[in-house]
Amino acid sequence: MSKEDRIPVLVFCEGQFGKIDGKTANGLARYSSKYEILGIIDSTQEGKEAKDVLNDVTNYILIFKNLDDALDAVSVKPMYIINGVAPDGGKFPFDAKDMFLDAMQRGMGIINTAHDFLSNIPEFVEKSRRNNVELIDLRKPPAKPHFIQGTLVGKNKPIRIFISGTDCAIGKRTTAIELVHALRQEEIQTNFVATGQTGILQEGDYGVVLDAIPGDFMSGEVEHTVVEASCNADVVVIEGQAGIHHPLGNHGVAILMGAQPHGVIIQHAPTREKLDGFPQFEGPNLKKEIKLVELFDSKVIAITLNHEGGTDVDTYIQEYERMYGVPVCDVLVQGAVKLVDAIRKEFSE
Amino acid sequence: MSKEDRIPVLVFCEGQFGKIDGKTANGLARYSSKYEILGIIDSTQEGKEAKDVLNDVTNYILIFKNLDDALDAVSVKPMYIINGVAPDGGKFPFDAKDMFLDAMQRGMGIINTAHDFLSNIPEFVEKSRRNNVELIDLRKPPAKPHFIQGTLVGKNKPIRIFISGTDCAIGKRTTAIELVHALRQEEIQTNFVATGQTGILQEGDYGVVLDAIPGDFMSGEVEHTVVEASCNADVVVIEGQAGIHHPLGNHGVAILMGAQPHGVIIQHAPTREKLDGFPQFEGPNLKKEIKLVELFDSKVIAITLNHEGGTDVDTYIQEYERMYGVPVCDVLVQGAVKLVDAIRKEFSE
Repeated sequence: MSKEDRIPVLVFCEGQFGKIDGKTANGLARYSSKYEILGIIDSTQEGKEAKDVLNDVTNYILIFKNLDDALDAVSVKPMYIINGVAPDGGKFPFDAKDMFLDAMQRGMGIINTAHDFLSNIPEFVEKSRRNNVELIDLRKPPAKPHFIQGTLVGKNKPIRIFISGTDCAIGKRTTAIELVHALRQEEIQTNFVATGQTGILQEGDYGVVLDAIPGDFMSGEVEHTVVEASCNADVVVIEGQAGIHHPLGNHGVAILMGAQPHGVIIQHAPTREKLDGFPQFEGPNLKKEIKLVELFDSKVIAITLNHEGGTDVDTYIQEYERMYGVPVCDVLVQGAVKLVDAIRKEFSE
Repeated sequence: MSKEDRIPVLVFCEGQFGKIDGKTANGLARYSSKYEILGIIDSTQEGKEAKDVLNDVTNYILIFKNLDDALDAVSVKPMYIINGVAPDGGKFPFDAKDMFLDAMQRGMGIINTAHDFLSNIPEFVEKSRRNNVELIDLRKPPAKPHFIQGTLVGKNKPIRIFISGTDCAIGKRTTAIELVHALRQEEIQTNFVATGQTGILQEGDYGVVLDAIPGDFMSGEVEHTVVEASCNADVVVIEGQAGIHHPLGNHGVAILMGAQPHGVIIQHAPTREKLDGFPQFEGPNLKKEIKLVELFDSKVIAITLNHEGGTDVDTYIQEYERMYGVPVCDVLVQGAVKLVDAIRKEFSE
């Protein structure tokens, strides 16, 4: 999608922009091939630019106090308002219900990323009908679910690369998207499969919001989506969720089983001691993740590092390359060339 | 619950009783502490007794052609009709819709085990209201979902034992229930946590139908249910689903993470070569299951065997005890005494 074809939107992120619960909004501010972010609504940061809050944002995006201010300021009419708040547990911000209803009144659809489905709430359904705007519940599972068939077991092509990690909010999606772009730049036909709502909003030709799929169908929906993405592709890159040795590790296992990846890249933050949001559990454990990938019949072909908190990753790159015998890099600093090379080397036929 | 307090029910299992897709009905015919099975509806086996079809059934249960015949024959009025057909993917048998509506007309509630929710279908809702009978969708997730908290991490008591396995339909539930009864016989306060609909119907004080829970909440619902079951218990036994190295292994990981089991018992069929329903995937692999349990910070304390197809398990018992250094038994033949001893030995404090 060229920049001009993108769909203009506002992103609601009251009180959370730049924070961990604002990760959907943060991701969209950084990058989306699908949506043009006209502005962010967060009254606690009114008047700032997105890049004042997140230093890796390069797009010009203003933060507004409320819907009125945003609509007064923008030059294009937003087609949707996206709910960019994503707390653990995925509640819809019902505090802001009136603003969302007002947005529909003014001709905007809603893209809802919460586990609560607005299409089940008569007030929202009625308002969307009356104003002829869309109500999109991104997490609503397909009406006809897909049960795992084993379609991809033993299938050599396309090459399927799973970007897993040792934790949530560690950079898996960013690494995946960088890798997709790097592969495409080498004219390798690449499709991206998103497995979470932010990935779908950012780069969403193929995707499933795995955390909303009933247990019986998690691996099957991944399989179905990866099969769809396998048409006309040399490589399919699959976004991970959480990790495997993780309280939400059921997602990782569903992807391993459904996608049957030939190679896994593990994203890790060398100095992160506790799991994000789960301080009671054992912290990120790269060694266990690697062993788990192997027990699930795949192999780790590279490790990617997150330099959060100013970690000097260079020393870790050398240490891990020696320890694990695979290429290691920091994609945000060095790009994804090393990963493209690793894929070429492993799957040269 | 004493035998006299059990709730009288009919079980619908058209064309499937005794077969793999009839596993809910098969389980109920074998055993239920909660329901009294008055009869089974399966026109293809009309006139037989349940024990003619399943040789391990000891209850006297007749198989009927249809609802009319069943109601004519029984001496007690059934309170519910249970949908006992459980195909992969869990579709409701809509072919038999009229019979279920008729059952409501005659004053019976429906206990529905399918992934399709009857409470979302106006025709069923209307009929249940008009006849003042219940419509229970056993797989409907809780309205207020539970996200994993880590409550059980590091908690020593009660002892939590997870009955996992190397495949579906391999005997995990039977082993779990036998173990529960054996522990109770030793006057060890034991609670059972079912994780599938049959377990809940058979012995359902605590339970969650895990395969219907959205990915984000699978481990959390397990945790919540195990915490509930931890009151006044010395031991909590948790039923497994599928396995870990399995196309539906997301269930096993959710239980490991949510329940934080101190010990795992793995149910295995030594001569089963292919996974049930998944011939494309690698077959049951006991070694990998054991390693996976260890990587998830628990330990295998016993192995239980299924003698399906007349397997002579005695040789395997010796071989596995030598190989894996844990007690091995066939619960259906030898009872669960060896398992009780294993639990005592491991957790004697």
